[in-house]
Amino acid sequence: MRSFGADTRLPTLAVVLDIIRERGAVSRVELADVTGLTPATMTHAVRKLTELGLVHEVGTVPSNRGTPRRLMGIKADACYMVGVQLDQFAAVGVVVDLAGRIVVRRDMPPAGQRPLAEVVADIAAAVHGMLEDADVPSGKVLGIGLATYGPQDREAGVVITPHPTPEWTGYPLAETLSEATGLPVALENDATAAGLGVQTAGGSGSSFAVVFMSGGIGGGVILDGHPYRGVTSNGVELGHISVDALGADCPCGNRGCLDPVAGPRPVVERALENPVLAARLGLGTDTLTDFNRIGRAARGGDAAAAALIADSAQRLAVATVTLVNMFDVGRVVLAGQAFAESGQAYRDVLEEWLNRSVFMRHVHTVEVDLADDVALAAALGGAAVVLRNLLESPNPELRGAAEATA
Amino acid sequence: MRSFGADTRLPTLAVVLDIIRERGAVSRVELADVTGLTPATMTHAVRKLTELGLVHEVGTVPSNRGTPRRLMGIKADACYMVGVQLDQFAAVGVVVDLAGRIVVRRDMPPAGQRPLAEVVADIAAAVHGMLEDADVPSGKVLGIGLATYGPQDREAGVVITPHPTPEWTGYPLAETLSEATGLPVALENDATAAGLGVQTAGGSGSSFAVVFMSGGIGGGVILDGHPYRGVTSNGVELGHISVDALGADCPCGNRGCLDPVAGPRPVVERALENPVLAARLGLGTDTLTDFNRIGRAARGGDAAAAALIADSAQRLAVATVTLVNMFDVGRVVLAGQAFAESGQAYRDVLEEWLNRSVFMRHVHTVEVDLADDVALAAALGGAAVVLRNLLESPNPELRGAAEATA
Repeated sequence: MRSFGADTRLPTLAVVLDIIRERGAVSRVELADVTGLTPATMTHAVRKLTELGLVHEVGTVPSNRGTPRRLMGIKADACYMVGVQLDQFAAVGVVVDLAGRIVVRRDMPPAGQRPLAEVVADIAAAVHGMLEDADVPSGKVLGIGLATYGPQDREAGVVITPHPTPEWTGYPLAETLSEATGLPVALENDATAAGLGVQTAGGSGSSFAVVFMSGGIGGGVILDGHPYRGVTSNGVELGHISVDALGADCPCGNRGCLDPVAGPRPVVERALENPVLAARLGLGTDTLTDFNRIGRAARGGDAAAAALIADSAQRLAVATVTLVNMFDVGRVVLAGQAFAESGQAYRDVLEEWLNRSVFMRHVHTVEVDLADDVALAAALGGAAVVLRNLLESPNPELRGAAEATA
Repeated sequence: MRSFGADTRLPTLAVVLDIIRERGAVSRVELADVTGLTPATMTHAVRKLTELGLVHEVGTVPSNRGTPRRLMGIKADACYMVGVQLDQFAAVGVVVDLAGRIVVRRDMPPAGQRPLAEVVADIAAAVHGMLEDADVPSGKVLGIGLATYGPQDREAGVVITPHPTPEWTGYPLAETLSEATGLPVALENDATAAGLGVQTAGGSGSSFAVVFMSGGIGGGVILDGHPYRGVTSNGVELGHISVDALGADCPCGNRGCLDPVAGPRPVVERALENPVLAARLGLGTDTLTDFNRIGRAARGGDAAAAALIADSAQRLAVATVTLVNMFDVGRVVLAGQAFAESGQAYRDVLEEWLNRSVFMRHVHTVEVDLADDVALAAALGGAAVVLRNLLESPNPELRGAAEATA
């Protein structure tokens, strides 16, 4: 049996909740007008969201028909979502309320090359610490969205990557973290999560691509508010597209891949080959820290550092042209910890290159933006995934609804 | 106002019609079971398709509940669709009945570098000739789907490409052909059309990528039966992704593009640089004819010809890895006139390369197939687009319904 419904179903509840969140206080009529949904569908959606305890009446406005229109608003403290982004060199978590506000954030110990049991224990402790800081009872937490490396079996919550250590191949990351925290855990690709995080901050229903750069390079595409996933949620692997058909073999199986020629790791390696530069910038900590030191120096006018960033940016630009030529989007957003210092430099190179080189540039231009907070976008997206999974499920039930509405 | 409905709406009528077509005779219960749609939605869809004169009762089967179940079937001759694929070196048209059968096909004069008024007049004459041959009155023709180069403004029916001549930039191809034939014309990207053509032949609801090669190289992606379009329907420009970041500047604005290093044109150019080979194969007609001569010679054991095809196939394989890494599909279908002689050789190279190199190969394998009829896939897809546009419109009305149901 094939189901045509699963992937094309309109996630009405998510759409409606997003708009109520964006507008603050909104009537059913206005909701129907903005979404294009029928009044009956809208009434059903608002009722379901009210039953779930996610929205409530926040006031009324006079209407032409005599009966005042009721305005619906988000119950911001009805429930909370935790988002965590984890990779070898960076880890950060957020607790987000239903209105999308960050209640607390916390830097966590990155994965490094440590045993995963230790990594998971650290995340669990950090999550509990965040909830304590924010005074949020765990009964009000819908779950944790964990954004990390692909490839992954997203539905099973299992990572399928040999990076950063072979232990990651087939590791049940979601289940292990769920056991350690007592909370449901949803796994998500970090670049896709960054896209969802950008969308949470910047408006629903939009279309754009994400270039994600932390310890490595990844990609994501959001189209009309929905992540492009492909058949196994492992699409948009920007770091492992070939930018040189005759280039070096990559451990991924491909050759001349973008990440090993333009990512933070090769940039840092090239810098370390220059002992004077390495000493001047104080390199030698870890890839991401060193990369951001190079970025800061480039910004400050260090010519050698600027040349390294410019070379990486040009190669990334070539791959981003491919990304845009493949997905036909009019906006590219840069996110991830590696853009913390050099984001503006990359942005400028990419925008210039894209508008000179993309195939459909006579049809539309391409805008390049930095995410509002490059370091938090993926964690924010992790939090968004938790709510989205709930609202897109066939019959959503709110975990801890009793506590939430009590 | 934003509309969330437009791109994510389930094209129920198209889905239901596809399944009735595939199964021949099917009950409403079976339809609901296969599609996962509710009985109410299914009843509405079948009623609308019946009103449109597209399906009718073809028999009954006994049911457990006493009342026999009515079986619905396609009215194959209720209406017809014309599909045309056009490029510089190839043009072909088909007339297809509602059951998806090709009633007639015809090779047409390719565009060459001729004035477009002349090209359009030729297509119009060929379409009328086909309809005469098939004895189909034009009142029963829903329209023409014209598959050709991108970029294009698909909705406006305007091509926006300087290829093969500058006259193509901004030319209202759909409107001009519509005036010349008296039939509605829908414009479509040729590679996307090939995907829709493959799907018509091979089952609805499937997911795969298309590598399309005629005079040049293009790409398409079908996901769960829907073409991936991006924001302006100009995505999946496979021919103009860079396979060499330091490669030659391409007129498209990018550098090191796939098409100018691996497409039929460079293969033929390399062959012509070898006068002995060119004479042996009788080259010198046009790019596509010459390319297919090289492909036939390679198949027949000509080592020089085989080397040219192998080099092209390896570069195409690198780009196809990018395509799969970007869109995460488990199947790639080759279509287009340039695969007529060398399709199998390309298929073998691509499948071997993909299963060695794609990022998610430990999650799933990638199958590579040749389209059933490589030369007709895009024209068949053009015909499919006509019906699809009708069934996906908010309130479908059948052109010539009076004649069709009379």
